[in-house]
Amino acid sequence: MTALINARTIGLNAARSAVDTAVAVATSLGVPVCVAVVDRAGHLLAYGRMDSAPLLSAQIALDKAYTVAAFGLPTHEWFDLIKDEPALLHGIVKTDRLVVFGGGVPVTVDGELVGAVGVSGGSTKQDRLIAESGAAAAVPQSVSTSGGVT
Amino acid sequence: MTALINARTIGLNAARSAVDTAVAVATSLGVPVCVAVVDRAGHLLAYGRMDSAPLLSAQIALDKAYTVAAFGLPTHEWFDLIKDEPALLHGIVKTDRLVVFGGGVPVTVDGELVGAVGVSGGSTKQDRLIAESGAAAAVPQSVSTSGGVT
Amino acid sequence: MTALINARTIGLNAARSAVDTAVAVATSLGVPVCVAVVDRAGHLLAYGRMDSAPLLSAQIALDKAYTVAAFGLPTHEWFDLIKDEPALLHGIVKTDRLVVFGGGVPVTVDGELVGAVGVSGGSTKQDRLIAESGAAAAVPQSVSTSGGVT
Amino acid sequence: MTALINARTIGLNAARSAVDTAVAVATSLGVPVCVAVVDRAGHLLAYGRMDSAPLLSAQIALDKAYTVAAFGLPTHEWFDLIKDEPALLHGIVKTDRLVVFGGGVPVTVDGELVGAVGVSGGSTKQDRLIAESGAAAAVPQSVSTSGGVT
Repeated sequence: MTALINARTIGLNAARSAVDTAVAVATSLGVPVCVAVVDRAGHLLAYGRMDSAPLLSAQIALDKAYTVAAFGLPTHEWFDLIKDEPALLHGIVKTDRLVVFGGGVPVTVDGELVGAVGVSGGSTKQDRLIAESGAAAAVPQSVSTSGGVT
Repeated sequence: MTALINARTIGLNAARSAVDTAVAVATSLGVPVCVAVVDRAGHLLAYGRMDSAPLLSAQIALDKAYTVAAFGLPTHEWFDLIKDEPALLHGIVKTDRLVVFGGGVPVTVDGELVGAVGVSGGSTKQDRLIAESGAAAAVPQSVSTSGGVT
Repeated sequence: MTALINARTIGLNAARSAVDTAVAVATSLGVPVCVAVVDRAGHLLAYGRMDSAPLLSAQIALDKAYTVAAFGLPTHEWFDLIKDEPALLHGIVKTDRLVVFGGGVPVTVDGELVGAVGVSGGSTKQDRLIAESGAAAAVPQSVSTSGGVT
Repeated sequence: MTALINARTIGLNAARSAVDTAVAVATSLGVPVCVAVVDRAGHLLAYGRMDSAPLLSAQIALDKAYTVAAFGLPTHEWFDLIKDEPALLHGIVKTDRLVVFGGGVPVTVDGELVGAVGVSGGSTKQDRLIAESGAAAAVPQSVSTSGGVT
């Protein structure tokens, strides 16, 4: 019996794959974005700002990735969670670094969150699509189904 | 083949012309305001606070100019962009330094953003009018007519 | 006659090359570091945190790159500048985001600063060496010697 | 008998004269600087960042002007005040917005502080000289010698 927690997380290689793929997808869509990838603890691993991406998106991408690692949900699921509770709707949205609209998605292995990708610069739908492509690239298929990951 | 991007921006002279003109227009309207002018990267170039301008407006003027440089849109166009997406309406307005009401306008040359003017102290319509007069003064006619400014 | 300033800057491609090269050099040295690359205006373009890099280094790398873009000097030149002026030695070091030890270096083209690389995680000598390798990779030789780039 | 305090302060016109003169002097010296002018309450009235002025100087100029209005002393007098008291030397320098080296000077009328000028970008001696030229321009001689104002 151990007193320790084993926190699996993505590292730099996975994060770079996520950024590269997200940038490639955003390029094909013609949407210049900022992409941030954080580890399981919410700390930044890799980042890329495409030429012409809005400067305002720089921090939002970081915050979307952080929000996901910090609570576990994709950012596009947040609004449904709070919209019928006025106190939350008006009160929690101002929480530092919390983003309640699409563009932040988890990187998971066997259902476990091991990192997160945040994208900002396009519409929330575009941002989400781009972030999901990045998250999928972060952890190769063979790993997420292999069962014996450590 | 070059790896470099050519980013044109206004400098101090253009920024001072913008402040002076905005102050003159605001004076003629009898509306004491704060005026901020930033370069293409969103950094402050010139600033003026008229006597009797509300102190609250000091930071709002800075933030309006920043918002424009950081996203490319006049601040009066932001609300239409978010009003039908509740998650954005509630979630994005708290973004640091983002202002979603009128008074921030771009300085453009040949359709390219090269700076921004932010004004605060009057109604949003007055602020916008004053900011537009400043933006028009920032770049001399001879330049702004050189090829299809929008 | 134009009121505009022509500010050349690196973009994402150059920044990614800098991160990739810096990470490769740090790997060969066995020193896990954080690498940040900013554009001419000091805004983040690309970032990488190597596995096992100290978390404390995350912000320091960002700040080293910012310091270089914001003042023009490599960070290892700052201490000589202030060491004999006690008021600066005690007073300026606390400036927000200013780093006065090695690890931040400029990316230059024809003697002009067009970006900056910040590295943190090793000794200041290692950080500087790694940052310099990144900066050299940011702008291909063919560009920096082409002479007439604009 | 009144319960009110009459706080004389410079306004926008005086502040603009200070910025314009400081910029002209800095130009003649070949030293690109940032210039900030605050009112008696420490709030920003006017600002100018010269082309090529270090970005790092942007906030330092603001802080120098604030320091003067907030304590009454020119910033170059601070270090002598604290250098022989180790607790202050090490402890007070980190106070938010306090600058303890030259470049911030008061604007005075009849010995009364009515505003302040902060300059950053050159050596502390250059900054001080430029700031003093700005402060002298803020209030015309005829006023400061008029004698009967209170």
